[in-house]
Amino acid sequence: MIVTLLTDFGTSDYFVGALKGALLNVNPAAQVIDITHDIAPHDIEAAAFTLLAAFETFPRGTIHLTVVDPGVGSARRAIVVASEQHTFVGPDNGVFGYVFERLGNFRVFQITNEKFFRPRVSATFHGRDIFAPVAGALSRGTRPEELGHEVEDFVRLAFASPETTSDGTLAGVVLHIDRFGNCVTNITPRDLDEEMIRGGATLRVGGREVRAFRRFFADEGSAPGEPFAIWGSAGLLEIAVFRDSAARTLGVSRGARVEIKKP
Amino acid sequence: MIVTLLTDFGTSDYFVGALKGALLNVNPAAQVIDITHDIAPHDIEAAAFTLLAAFETFPRGTIHLTVVDPGVGSARRAIVVASEQHTFVGPDNGVFGYVFERLGNFRVFQITNEKFFRPRVSATFHGRDIFAPVAGALSRGTRPEELGHEVEDFVRLAFASPETTSDGTLAGVVLHIDRFGNCVTNITPRDLDEEMIRGGATLRVGGREVRAFRRFFADEGSAPGEPFAIWGSAGLLEIAVFRDSAARTLGVSRGARVEIKKP
Amino acid sequence: MIVTLLTDFGTSDYFVGALKGALLNVNPAAQVIDITHDIAPHDIEAAAFTLLAAFETFPRGTIHLTVVDPGVGSARRAIVVASEQHTFVGPDNGVFGYVFERLGNFRVFQITNEKFFRPRVSATFHGRDIFAPVAGALSRGTRPEELGHEVEDFVRLAFASPETTSDGTLAGVVLHIDRFGNCVTNITPRDLDEEMIRGGATLRVGGREVRAFRRFFADEGSAPGEPFAIWGSAGLLEIAVFRDSAARTLGVSRGARVEIKKP
Repeated sequence: MIVTLLTDFGTSDYFVGALKGALLNVNPAAQVIDITHDIAPHDIEAAAFTLLAAFETFPRGTIHLTVVDPGVGSARRAIVVASEQHTFVGPDNGVFGYVFERLGNFRVFQITNEKFFRPRVSATFHGRDIFAPVAGALSRGTRPEELGHEVEDFVRLAFASPETTSDGTLAGVVLHIDRFGNCVTNITPRDLDEEMIRGGATLRVGGREVRAFRRFFADEGSAPGEPFAIWGSAGLLEIAVFRDSAARTLGVSRGARVEIKKP
Repeated sequence: MIVTLLTDFGTSDYFVGALKGALLNVNPAAQVIDITHDIAPHDIEAAAFTLLAAFETFPRGTIHLTVVDPGVGSARRAIVVASEQHTFVGPDNGVFGYVFERLGNFRVFQITNEKFFRPRVSATFHGRDIFAPVAGALSRGTRPEELGHEVEDFVRLAFASPETTSDGTLAGVVLHIDRFGNCVTNITPRDLDEEMIRGGATLRVGGREVRAFRRFFADEGSAPGEPFAIWGSAGLLEIAVFRDSAARTLGVSRGARVEIKKP
Repeated sequence: MIVTLLTDFGTSDYFVGALKGALLNVNPAAQVIDITHDIAPHDIEAAAFTLLAAFETFPRGTIHLTVVDPGVGSARRAIVVASEQHTFVGPDNGVFGYVFERLGNFRVFQITNEKFFRPRVSATFHGRDIFAPVAGALSRGTRPEELGHEVEDFVRLAFASPETTSDGTLAGVVLHIDRFGNCVTNITPRDLDEEMIRGGATLRVGGREVRAFRRFFADEGSAPGEPFAIWGSAGLLEIAVFRDSAARTLGVSRGARVEIKKP
C-alpha cells in the first residue's frame, strides 16, 4: 500500500527519518513515497497547493500523509479525509483545503482513538506520534470509522478566484513560484478563454506588460528573455521566461497581482 | 527488509544513486528508506545525533546504513553493530557513538571479509564499495559474524552531560539547531525537574534570559516573538520561538552555552 | 521492478510527486528510487554525468527515468534506450549522451504510441504525462518495440577528451564539482599513467600548481589545506583538499582548464 509524505520538515533533521520509522513500525510493508519535505516552514497554503497538484496522479487507494502543523499540541484537530480514491491524514488546519474543492464525495473523521497512537505522544511532534502510526494503520486496513467520529466543520481553504473589475479587467494573483521561476497564477481556462488570448488580451504583472502567449516553453512567439504566458501543468495560467526565471525577471513574488485586459 | 540511509553526500551528486544501486545490486528486494543525505560534510556529531533521534522508531530488524566518512581509505575501521532490534553499518569514527549509549546488548564486528565487497574497491567511496553491499548482504540474511571478527575498542562518543557549577547553576550546551531554528540542548528531564521549572528557574542563553516554559509550540505563556523553553520530541530541552527561529532571535549556534539558575 | 528517478525538478515543488504518482498509477508495485532531483535547471550535461556515474551499480533490469527537458513540448523526441542490462526513458537531448559511450549493445526507440501516455498530455510536463507512464509500462513488461519505431540518429554527447599540446602538456577540463568541492576532471588513467605521477608530473589549475598525488583523502603527502590530485570514485582524476573545498581554495568552476606537465 502506497503512503505519500508531504511535510515542511526539511531534509537535514531527524524528523523525516522518525516519521518514516513510526509509519513502518506499524506497517513494515508500506511503500513510502516522498512528495516533498521542503515546504517552507509552517506554509499551509504552499502545502495545500502542492498536494492539490500532485495527489490525483497517484493510484486508487493511496494514503497521503501531510504534516505542516504549526499548531501541533494545541486544540487543532487531527483528521482523516476518506474519499473513494484516496485517503488523507494530517492536521485540520487548511492543509487539505484545496483538495476538498477537488474531491467528489468524501468524509472527514477526527482522530481520537489513542489505541492507534505511539505509546508516548510528545506535545511537539504529532507527525511521528499520531499521524504516521495512523497512516500505517490505515495502510493495513483499519477503517477511518475506527479512528474517531465524523466531523463536518473541518477547515476549508478556497482558492481566491480571479475577480473582474468594473472596466472588465480580470484580476488574479500569483499562487506559487516554482523552482524554475515560473509564476503560477489562480487563473483557469474558465476565466480566460482562447478567443480572448487570440484576440490580443494583454497581461500586466510586476509593472510590466506580457503580450506573448506560448503553447510550450520552447515555443516561438516572444524574444529570448521576454516573459510569456502559458497554460501550465497544474491547469493554471503561468508567466514564464524560456530557460530563465520569470519571477526574477519581473521582480514578483507570491501574492503579486496579475491583471488581464481584454482586447 | 528495511535499510535506512543516513549520509553527508548531499542530493545533487551521483553519490546517493551509486550507493542505492550498490545496495540493490546485492538485494533488489531491499526497501530503501532515506533518513537524510544533508548532514553537513564530515559532521560526525550531527550524524550521530540524527541517527540517535530517528533509529528507535523503526521496526525490529531494520538495518541502518550510516556513511559520514572523512577518513575513508585510511586505517579507520568499517564496522557492523548488531543489537537485538537493529543492525548498523558504517565507519568506526563515532557516527554510532550516541547509539551505543542507548542500545542495551550489542556486539560490534570489524568488516574484513572482502567476499562481500564490490569487485573493485575505490580508495575514496567505501559507501558504494563496502558499506552498501555489506548492508545488502545483511538484508538477505548474512550474519554479522560472517563479515569479520568481533572488536571491543570501537569509537564511543558520549553526550557532554550538563554540569552543575559551584553556585548550583546547571550549565549545558546547544547540541543541534533544527530547520525551524529550535535550539536542542543536552539537558534532559533528569537534569531539570518539574519542580524547578514551576518554581521559577531562569534560563540564560545568548546573553538573554528565557523565563517562559511551554508545553507545546502554540501554548501560551510568553509574548509573540519571545523565546521560550520546551521539552522537545527528542526528549531534550529546546529553546524555541513560536513560528520563528530561536537561533536567529538569540543569535546562537551549535555549542552555545545554556545556563539554568535554580529559583 | 526498480525504477530510478533523475531530474532537475528540485524538491520543493509538486513535480516530483506528480511524476511518482503517474508512474505508480501504471505500476503500483514499482520500486521507486530517487537518484537526484537537484540537477541544476536545464543542465543536460550535469544530468548525463550523474547518470553515467550512478547507473552501473544498479542491478540488471533497472529502468532509469531521466527527465531534464528544457525542450518539452517542442519537436525534440521522447526515447527509450534498451540495453541488455538497463533500460532508459527520457528526452532525446543528450541526457543519455555519456551513457551511450559506456553501453555495449543497445537500441533506441522513439516513443510515439499514445496508448501508453496519460489521457491528457500537457505541453509543459511530459515527465508526468509521457515518460513516467512509459517507465511504468516498461516496469510491467511492455517491450520497447511496442512504444514506437527504432531510430539511429539520437543525440550523442561525447566527453571532451583531454588533449596533448605541442610541448607534450596534457590539457583537460573540470567536468563536475561535487558537494565536497572536489573538482572532477575528464582525465582518465589512460591519459595519465602511474609512471608519470611517480616521476613528478605537475598539475596546473586555477593559476596554481598542484604537486601532491594522494591515494585517498586522508592520505599523507601534502600540507593541510593544500590541494592534491587523486583518482576519484568515478574513475576520473579529481583535485581535492582534505576536509575542505578544492573549488573554493582554487577559485575554479566547471569548465576550468587543467594542465599536466610531464616531468
